Amino acid sequence: MLYIIGLGLSTIEDITISGLNTIQECDYVFVDAYTSILSHGIERISAFCGKDVKRADREFTEQDSLIISLARSENVAFLVVGDPLCATTHTDLIIRAIKERIPYKVIHNSSIMTSVACCGLQLYRMGETVSIPLWTDCGCPDSFYPKIVSNFFRGLHTLCLLDIKIREKSLDNLLYDRDIYEPPRFMLCSEAAYQILEAGRRIHQRFVDASADPGVEMPCEPEPECYLHPDCLAVCLARVGSPTQAMLVTTIGILAASLSAGDSNNLSNVLGGPLHSMIIPGKLHPMEIEFLCARLLIGDGKEDLGTASNGTSLPVLLPPAMAGCGFRERVKSMFDRHQELLPTKF
Amino acid sequence: MLYIIGLGLSTIEDITISGLNTIQECDYVFVDAYTSILSHGIERISAFCGKDVKRADREFTEQDSLIISLARSENVAFLVVGDPLCATTHTDLIIRAIKERIPYKVIHNSSIMTSVACCGLQLYRMGETVSIPLWTDCGCPDSFYPKIVSNFFRGLHTLCLLDIKIREKSLDNLLYDRDIYEPPRFMLCSEAAYQILEAGRRIHQRFVDASADPGVEMPCEPEPECYLHPDCLAVCLARVGSPTQAMLVTTIGILAASLSAGDSNNLSNVLGGPLHSMIIPGKLHPMEIEFLCARLLIGDGKEDLGTASNGTSLPVLLPPAMAGCGFRERVKSMFDRHQELLPTKF
Repeated sequence: MLYIIGLGLSTIEDITISGLNTIQECDYVFVDAYTSILSHGIERISAFCGKDVKRADREFTEQDSLIISLARSENVAFLVVGDPLCATTHTDLIIRAIKERIPYKVIHNSSIMTSVACCGLQLYRMGETVSIPLWTDCGCPDSFYPKIVSNFFRGLHTLCLLDIKIREKSLDNLLYDRDIYEPPRFMLCSEAAYQILEAGRRIHQRFVDASADPGVEMPCEPEPECYLHPDCLAVCLARVGSPTQAMLVTTIGILAASLSAGDSNNLSNVLGGPLHSMIIPGKLHPMEIEFLCARLLIGDGKEDLGTASNGTSLPVLLPPAMAGCGFRERVKSMFDRHQELLPTKF
Repeated sequence: MLYIIGLGLSTIEDITISGLNTIQECDYVFVDAYTSILSHGIERISAFCGKDVKRADREFTEQDSLIISLARSENVAFLVVGDPLCATTHTDLIIRAIKERIPYKVIHNSSIMTSVACCGLQLYRMGETVSIPLWTDCGCPDSFYPKIVSNFFRGLHTLCLLDIKIREKSLDNLLYDRDIYEPPRFMLCSEAAYQILEAGRRIHQRFVDASADPGVEMPCEPEPECYLHPDCLAVCLARVGSPTQAMLVTTIGILAASLSAGDSNNLSNVLGGPLHSMIIPGKLHPMEIEFLCARLLIGDGKEDLGTASNGTSLPVLLPPAMAGCGFRERVKSMFDRHQELLPTKF
């Protein structure tokens, strides 16, 4: 029997009772160590479960058939950070089990795809989710861009899942089949915002180039409103579900600019390190705005501090600078500007 | 301090270790008994947690301020089936806590919004989620319909959350302020399918009526392809995450027809009672089709049985009847027909 067990978002204590009970009955326990990470290492998982938990990297899970062959006669647990079915990665493992007539059971848990609602944006208003890949020398794929734009211009929010690279090999090491791995890399919100604006510029440039070449038959250039403006809001989330969870409401432009400003800026102090996710909101309901601006409800003049006076981590607001304007006025103007950018039918 | 704790989908064993630990530290424990239900009663939650868990109905949570006033000085847990933030219902409670400067913490858990991936459809391909309300004498709202159509014609899947009514009062009892509640009602997939097709007919009829009235200025009638065809696929899910989880892949037309056929039909035997959810798929990736048809992978001639020979509950396939055609041929034809109904650009 194969058990595919969600671990939730932050620490091993986020596992469910039924998940933990199931592990106790298993002969072998593997943990997916390549699609995401908990805030601590595999040793703590082993100690907590009282089992010798083995690391399963991508090659082991996807190419080696040990997990499947063990599950023919033994109880095997495969642990996955978040909910096991939110990424498509593990579908393949389940289909292999089915083909071998090995019974399987999924034990669900919380996922970043729903926990992002902690910022107050409603999941009902989410359009298609996108993954933003880290751009490298090998390529700068921008297929996420039209999806964000399509959601935005239908008034829907877009959850952007940001790339992580764990135990990846460099091109050189791949070619020479050397088992040397790059240091882990985790995309931050500022990088994602830069890539979003840059993707828009590149797509626009491709149309300009094609229109200058009479030999090329091209589609019409998209309308100007088919590009995201730097004044669009971006809701940044860091380490959702963990004790150090942080949230920031600002604009795509401010985020992207912070990337060139380096690490010393205010913004990276607010969000801190990985894991980051980002939401590009569409049309905002008044209650969503109230929640995003929850810090203003407390009204103690400490709206720009990282932690509210009551100890709860509310979203930090970082509106664009406006000469002679107070903090609340700048926040209001940031939200008004976002709503202006949406099509008038909303 | 106010703790808002997700219970997961099925039984109290689906709570997380961190959720259970938090309850132990609380002076008061309430459970939301109006937005969803576990597969067992509140007594089992109390016994499992070793606490006197109190039922919180809608009036108590939304109008009575006892939860908030207790949380000023005590540790209060508010338990919610699924993930606490997936419905918008509990946002109001959090905003009230923030306004009163009461610190709060959310402990996430699995939600129907992600667990539906158990059928093999990818969450990345989901468009906007819709809620389908039970139609009553008081009204037949159909605003869910254009959202499903909009997703479908963009090639995206639509998760349809089906209405449940727990502890609702009849209009009479509301008017006379009598504390008499109607029996609980849970929408089934067959009812949802009927309402989807009927909503399409009603919206069409409104256009026809308006065009016959020269005094009315009306928008153009939507194109024929703006209506969902009864041959569209519907993926039905029952009691997701529970030991009796069941799945069915068929068409909207077959589902709707089963409603008039009464309870004795094959279909309600397959799915069983509440809670039901439904997905109207958009464009299907080959791996999604492989997963939906997992029963065919086993290929032991038992493809039409409720439980596969390996004990795992795989989706049951119920294709339309076709004279002289074998089961596999009918399934293939059902999927081909669905893809045909999508715009040609896919």
